[in-house]
Amino acid sequence: MLRTLGTCYYPEHWPEDIWAEDARRMVEAGLTWVRIGEFAWSRLEPSPGDLQFEWLDRAIEVLGQAGLKVVLGTPTATPPRWMADRHPDMFAVDDQGRPRGFGSRRHYCFSHKGYFAESQRITRLFAERFGKNPHVAAWQTDNEYGCHDTIISYSEAARDGFRTWLQVQFNDDIAALNAAWGNVFWSMEYRAFDEIALPNLTVTEPNPAHVHAFRRFSSDQVVAFNRAQVEIIKDHSSAPISHNYMGRITDFDHFKTGDDLEIATWDSYPLGFLEDRVGASPEQQRAYARQGDPDFQALHHDLYRAVGKGRWWVMEQQPGPVNWAPYNPAPLSGMVRLWSWEAFAHGAEAVCYFRWRQAPFAQEQLHAGMLRPDSKDAPAMAEAMQVAAELKDTPDVQPAQAPVALMFDYDADWAWATQPQGQGLSYFGLIFDVYRALRRAGLSVDIVRPETRDFAGYKMVLVPGMMHMPDDLKQALAASQAQVIYGPRSAARDASFNIPNPLPPALPGLDVTVSRLETIRPDMPRPLKGGGAAIHYVEELEGTGEPILRTNAGEVIAMRDGHKIYCGAWLDDDGFGMLLRQLAIEAGLTVRDLPEGIRVRQTATEEFWFNHTAAPVKTEVGLLPAAGVLRRPRPAC
Amino acid sequence: MLRTLGTCYYPEHWPEDIWAEDARRMVEAGLTWVRIGEFAWSRLEPSPGDLQFEWLDRAIEVLGQAGLKVVLGTPTATPPRWMADRHPDMFAVDDQGRPRGFGSRRHYCFSHKGYFAESQRITRLFAERFGKNPHVAAWQTDNEYGCHDTIISYSEAARDGFRTWLQVQFNDDIAALNAAWGNVFWSMEYRAFDEIALPNLTVTEPNPAHVHAFRRFSSDQVVAFNRAQVEIIKDHSSAPISHNYMGRITDFDHFKTGDDLEIATWDSYPLGFLEDRVGASPEQQRAYARQGDPDFQALHHDLYRAVGKGRWWVMEQQPGPVNWAPYNPAPLSGMVRLWSWEAFAHGAEAVCYFRWRQAPFAQEQLHAGMLRPDSKDAPAMAEAMQVAAELKDTPDVQPAQAPVALMFDYDADWAWATQPQGQGLSYFGLIFDVYRALRRAGLSVDIVRPETRDFAGYKMVLVPGMMHMPDDLKQALAASQAQVIYGPRSAARDASFNIPNPLPPALPGLDVTVSRLETIRPDMPRPLKGGGAAIHYVEELEGTGEPILRTNAGEVIAMRDGHKIYCGAWLDDDGFGMLLRQLAIEAGLTVRDLPEGIRVRQTATEEFWFNHTAAPVKTEVGLLPAAGVLRRPRPAC
Amino acid sequence: MLRTLGTCYYPEHWPEDIWAEDARRMVEAGLTWVRIGEFAWSRLEPSPGDLQFEWLDRAIEVLGQAGLKVVLGTPTATPPRWMADRHPDMFAVDDQGRPRGFGSRRHYCFSHKGYFAESQRITRLFAERFGKNPHVAAWQTDNEYGCHDTIISYSEAARDGFRTWLQVQFNDDIAALNAAWGNVFWSMEYRAFDEIALPNLTVTEPNPAHVHAFRRFSSDQVVAFNRAQVEIIKDHSSAPISHNYMGRITDFDHFKTGDDLEIATWDSYPLGFLEDRVGASPEQQRAYARQGDPDFQALHHDLYRAVGKGRWWVMEQQPGPVNWAPYNPAPLSGMVRLWSWEAFAHGAEAVCYFRWRQAPFAQEQLHAGMLRPDSKDAPAMAEAMQVAAELKDTPDVQPAQAPVALMFDYDADWAWATQPQGQGLSYFGLIFDVYRALRRAGLSVDIVRPETRDFAGYKMVLVPGMMHMPDDLKQALAASQAQVIYGPRSAARDASFNIPNPLPPALPGLDVTVSRLETIRPDMPRPLKGGGAAIHYVEELEGTGEPILRTNAGEVIAMRDGHKIYCGAWLDDDGFGMLLRQLAIEAGLTVRDLPEGIRVRQTATEEFWFNHTAAPVKTEVGLLPAAGVLRRPRPAC
Ligand SMILES: [Zn+2]
Ligand SMILES: [Zn+2]
Ligand SMILES: [Zn+2]
Repeated sequence: MLRTLGTCYYPEHWPEDIWAEDARRMVEAGLTWVRIGEFAWSRLEPSPGDLQFEWLDRAIEVLGQAGLKVVLGTPTATPPRWMADRHPDMFAVDDQGRPRGFGSRRHYCFSHKGYFAESQRITRLFAERFGKNPHVAAWQTDNEYGCHDTIISYSEAARDGFRTWLQVQFNDDIAALNAAWGNVFWSMEYRAFDEIALPNLTVTEPNPAHVHAFRRFSSDQVVAFNRAQVEIIKDHSSAPISHNYMGRITDFDHFKTGDDLEIATWDSYPLGFLEDRVGASPEQQRAYARQGDPDFQALHHDLYRAVGKGRWWVMEQQPGPVNWAPYNPAPLSGMVRLWSWEAFAHGAEAVCYFRWRQAPFAQEQLHAGMLRPDSKDAPAMAEAMQVAAELKDTPDVQPAQAPVALMFDYDADWAWATQPQGQGLSYFGLIFDVYRALRRAGLSVDIVRPETRDFAGYKMVLVPGMMHMPDDLKQALAASQAQVIYGPRSAARDASFNIPNPLPPALPGLDVTVSRLETIRPDMPRPLKGGGAAIHYVEELEGTGEPILRTNAGEVIAMRDGHKIYCGAWLDDDGFGMLLRQLAIEAGLTVRDLPEGIRVRQTATEEFWFNHTAAPVKTEVGLLPAAGVLRRPRPAC
Repeated sequence: MLRTLGTCYYPEHWPEDIWAEDARRMVEAGLTWVRIGEFAWSRLEPSPGDLQFEWLDRAIEVLGQAGLKVVLGTPTATPPRWMADRHPDMFAVDDQGRPRGFGSRRHYCFSHKGYFAESQRITRLFAERFGKNPHVAAWQTDNEYGCHDTIISYSEAARDGFRTWLQVQFNDDIAALNAAWGNVFWSMEYRAFDEIALPNLTVTEPNPAHVHAFRRFSSDQVVAFNRAQVEIIKDHSSAPISHNYMGRITDFDHFKTGDDLEIATWDSYPLGFLEDRVGASPEQQRAYARQGDPDFQALHHDLYRAVGKGRWWVMEQQPGPVNWAPYNPAPLSGMVRLWSWEAFAHGAEAVCYFRWRQAPFAQEQLHAGMLRPDSKDAPAMAEAMQVAAELKDTPDVQPAQAPVALMFDYDADWAWATQPQGQGLSYFGLIFDVYRALRRAGLSVDIVRPETRDFAGYKMVLVPGMMHMPDDLKQALAASQAQVIYGPRSAARDASFNIPNPLPPALPGLDVTVSRLETIRPDMPRPLKGGGAAIHYVEELEGTGEPILRTNAGEVIAMRDGHKIYCGAWLDDDGFGMLLRQLAIEAGLTVRDLPEGIRVRQTATEEFWFNHTAAPVKTEVGLLPAAGVLRRPRPAC
Repeated sequence: MLRTLGTCYYPEHWPEDIWAEDARRMVEAGLTWVRIGEFAWSRLEPSPGDLQFEWLDRAIEVLGQAGLKVVLGTPTATPPRWMADRHPDMFAVDDQGRPRGFGSRRHYCFSHKGYFAESQRITRLFAERFGKNPHVAAWQTDNEYGCHDTIISYSEAARDGFRTWLQVQFNDDIAALNAAWGNVFWSMEYRAFDEIALPNLTVTEPNPAHVHAFRRFSSDQVVAFNRAQVEIIKDHSSAPISHNYMGRITDFDHFKTGDDLEIATWDSYPLGFLEDRVGASPEQQRAYARQGDPDFQALHHDLYRAVGKGRWWVMEQQPGPVNWAPYNPAPLSGMVRLWSWEAFAHGAEAVCYFRWRQAPFAQEQLHAGMLRPDSKDAPAMAEAMQVAAELKDTPDVQPAQAPVALMFDYDADWAWATQPQGQGLSYFGLIFDVYRALRRAGLSVDIVRPETRDFAGYKMVLVPGMMHMPDDLKQALAASQAQVIYGPRSAARDASFNIPNPLPPALPGLDVTVSRLETIRPDMPRPLKGGGAAIHYVEELEGTGEPILRTNAGEVIAMRDGHKIYCGAWLDDDGFGMLLRQLAIEAGLTVRDLPEGIRVRQTATEEFWFNHTAAPVKTEVGLLPAAGVLRRPRPAC
């Protein structure tokens, strides 16, 4: 598959007489793709029913004639002001009960039936008008579902939808729901589904089963919303359909929306993310302030390769300082190129820079583009052009299965969020720590979805923190020939958020039981024999498994039975590093101990080395300059 | 009085066919008491008027037949969902104006007349049905009044109740209220009682007299709510009635609810409290993370001995990790035994472990019990059985008056909360610091209520921080033969929250005047001559009293006239330690300087030593192991 | 002009029979002025229309007969309780949508037409009654506009007013508004002015143009509210009219309210401010806890000299501990005197101590006065009397233009608040850092308003951070003979909050362009060649200007063309210190490097030295004691 570049463009923001020049410069810069349309509703339908699509026809034509392929976005993330008159209750409601009104974007509740119909209507108008346009080579639904915390809404529409959803889940049997949730606990039993409220504004915490069910419902609403658009587009177009996911948005199941789409894309803002969502220490934030976290983007690349069933892009690549993080530094020179190549190394089909020209107005006026507001090249332009030039000499992407599989389960993320048991603990955080340990060992990783049952080809499979594990998954893992690493907190809950009996994890082929669990203060790590420490979440293990890791105080932290291993604690970087390197070596993998900030990624035919630090680093493949990228044929194993 | 153990049990949570086995194991474990019923309303009255009490009859019978004594709780902390249909405005309202709805517990406003009547109705049904049941050996009203910040409600019901309460307080004379509150200050004068609103959502802080009156009203509402249940139960039962207070809940006057009850009980969660409410430094939290604060439980023991007029229990003793603190570690081995013995050392009649079996469902599924969810023994079981065995060889409790009295005044706590004058300052915090200094000196302490006028038998009486002191209390203290230690902030306000004239403290027999006061940053302690420092709250003293403590800069911190002492500052541990040890020695008390984490408590006949640290400590009674308890006959004075 | 002292008095708080004695003691203390009336509405009109002005007649007569001059305040900051019945929607609404109700003060929305009329009515009653009273020598409108965050209200009244205001701004052309704001950006276009909502409770941040316009509107509402009172008073009185501004309240344009007033006054609480609004480091807070920040009051003095067009007072001078800061220490002995003299050194006509007698009731019962609640002298009294005595031997104030002008633009403060781009960044903070650097260099500074076009007499003019600079200002500065120092962020936005093209700053006579900008973490200062560092906000500069400051890494931080200098970064104290000292020397100014906490201020005839530290400091004018003030004739240049 050919590696390509692109950008995001807003013809409606600029005078029509500069469109052609913009298109020409895009092509000149080596770009293939241009995404348009996703925020343009107010210009396409200024008043209800007053359709003004001609300008978009012309814009597509200008771009297409210049040789660009268009990704057309449905504009449902930004309904115009008049929509609020038609549907005054269309807004999401926050957990404090306040409607989240008009004036920015994503101002809708996924459960609102009126807006749902409007989103179908405008999608149908798009599909009918542009479905056969030869320049429209791909579609995007909406924009960044979940950005700005917009999945979960405590609206009346959501409440009504939730009741109906529960009624279906429980076959209209309220007693079954009461039993499944343990509502007897504090006399919380319902007599009918329409007695159920949303789990906010309670006196103390609501029932976790209630919260978790509401999260599942909320995710399903997104899947349905997205699917409705997909079905309409498919009626009129054979171009592939995508959605651009945002970094560390875990409030809905991307695998399930992905099932309805051909391509997964995501929006990669390494510096913004390091400031506002990676969760790095201040030291780490200082060290990588101008490069971004060395693993955060890679994890998303691997995740969206899975979500896209192999087909994925970066739809928005940070090209310079952004406007929305607590602090907004500029990238180190070379990082835009590095980020681009890193995406390709992980199998991206395309990398699109957001955005073409910095807008001098409105919310993102301090968000850099490839061009400055005065249309001069911004620093990103030269790096993008360098990547474009390098791509010309590059063989096509040859994706390959990685040797290591790491399961990522959105449902588990909601379960941890519902019941963290320790301040600040999250499933994503645990997965990220495990992923980082694997990467520091030089391993290439596949993220696999929770429905995976065939683990053939993997030498190591990790399922940390997956709070509910269906029986057939347990069986599939038990049957796998891979080194399988469970825990902590794996299989800790049944499907209805109860503690199972026998106690967790109840794994076939590995006799280990979590007899008790603790969460511990961050300033109280428990040192491990051999180095590193157990942190955050520590389980007490019983069973006949062979202890393979202990604290200095002698507590058993991990047990094994052959190539099944249960790790009953969250470990720090050294702890996970040592344990996983040792297990990887056993599994026959080539393991490295990479220098700080150096990362390696292998495709079927190539091996990429990246220097995420701001200084040259000596490596086994030579001195890598700051922000350096080295590409070489994949060595024989 | 016999020392006994017990547990908290929820027959409605378990299949009826395991009740008998559970009861048998309780007895086998050495337990005497089993508390039940307090959250069972939805199973007893699934729909309004549809009474289903038979299962509870059977549960009591099974438990009773096994030899257990039942404590029966009224279920008014968890009204069922249908109650919200009958009384849609029954919920408390938070200070931001949001109703605190159904879905957890304690979802009612004490001022709501409709729910008040419902609470009487269900209590009457309980009393009529179980009042003569021979196995019901004690009662509990409701559950943990005030837990989850549920005393103060800004509802319309509370507003109406407050207006009526004020009308009574001020003899229907609004001018008297305006004068008493100084409402002229910012043109806040009212023309009628129904012009008075609740003191929330004002532009800047409301009148402290307004706030403080609302807190007095809110406390009175709890007293009335509780009394209504007590009166009904007493009509049908002669068993003693109790309520289980929660740690550091000071928003209502426990002495006044206690006046209507035979027994005070409280719920002791040493590890959860250390994490979420003790206010300890991070170092202290690390040192005692698995043992709990060495003084926090003891203070409550002494407090509830006073609230219970000598009769008190621990109704819920933490048996392992809980689910609700920021971090939830497991107790150090031996601490469950230590906590039990500490309660007995302070005069407890009974210690009940919460709960019998860990629930695999709902909010507290990660709250440990004596049994694991799979019914195997949890670690607490062995320690409880050890205590049960040790109790067999133990003489009965012989309570004794302590040599030191420390006055605790809920009204003063509300006064400090109303007007802290320095960030983070609280009356409870001051009392706790004084109490800790006394304990570190090896002294046994009686908490005494503010209505106390007879101080006979005490060698030392302390009344720190009591912002309003009635004249007859001043006279009684002046007449006492004890060493009396006032201040800081004693008698600083009149009954209506005004600064009195002559200026405070205006004590008979001790000429000292607070001419000015400061609150100071925590990072600016003022070192004292001789060691320690004044912190937080520092008064400037005038008068003819003899200065006995000065800062290094020469400011007078404490003055005396004979055995009346006024201390005009909050002191740090060393400061209070030195001052109080010196005054105790003068008062003829035996004073120790106990090693870190070691505490001593004397009853009439015994002396108990406790090691709250995680390592053995050398003491004058020998080496105490970590979590060690030593019991010996009380030495002659 | 004669320097005078005064106090703030509340006759309505005290029995009438002590008024004469109070007045006598005021005169005896050397006071000239007494401010009264501003919170007395409920006593003047206890019920609507029931006017009770006789007591105020008598109070004025008693004070006047004693020889005092009265400043009479309109009582509009504290409408009585009955006003809320007449205008239930008169309250401001906070950004979360909650009305900010009755029970303290400032409980009104500036946009409410009903309350606006009431404020005119009561002002007219005041003016008619007291306009010719010979003892009423000055007026004050309302009290501390903006205190308690009361400028910006999200009420319906504000929304309606904002729509009308926009309609006027945009000549009833909604397309012009859409274009000016760039509303196309996220389909935020309006079809009519009545579609515009207030910029709160949006999903993510609203359009900065929307926010900034709302701030301009909110400021204009204050100007109109104030002007309405002024016009009425002027109809009946020839006494000068003032308003007492509060420290660091920047939400409305004080210059514009000042245009309608004869005198600007402000309320100076050095210790409270250091704790709650200066933004100093903990070390600085410790060092100056009892003295206040050495520059914060001085900046306000210079600001209000500009706001008052030369005529300004301190209307409320902190005399001891206050009640409202996080911590409330007592001033170091001598500081009340120092603060008084510092105000005179900056040109104050009068300094009034707040308040005469500490109130024993209501919100400020712990706010010190000149008298204690028991009417004895508080510590401030002796210092005020010393100042009064010293004033007798003192020549009149001879104001002089300072050699340095620093422009202060409220509109720029709103622009930074609208778009800080880095956490915690504010225009006021930048101005304060620049001001401090100038003061540490021993320079006297004039604050100049943004409408200033004549810079004659200034050797140095600084316009840092002024995000919008009108063309005629640019021209006037270019034409000035002074050393002109722009940046960072000067002229970064056009009048509608868009990035201009050509890119900023686009200054005549200085070829510099900000090609990119960054905000950086506080823990990542960028060291400068020669010392100091760039912090917070760093621009990348292009152009032919001569680089005069670089980072160690070689990035250009400042450029010049002759005596026009652009500084493209926020600098730390050392950075601003070095740069500004060097530029001042070039400009022919005498520059000092003052010891820590020492400050100098020159008037036309005098030079004042102040020691803000708590220890004696050796200076070029000799040893200055702690809190020391030295006054000497101004040395020849
Ligand atoms: Zn075409
Ligand atoms: Zn029986
Ligand atoms: Zn007169």
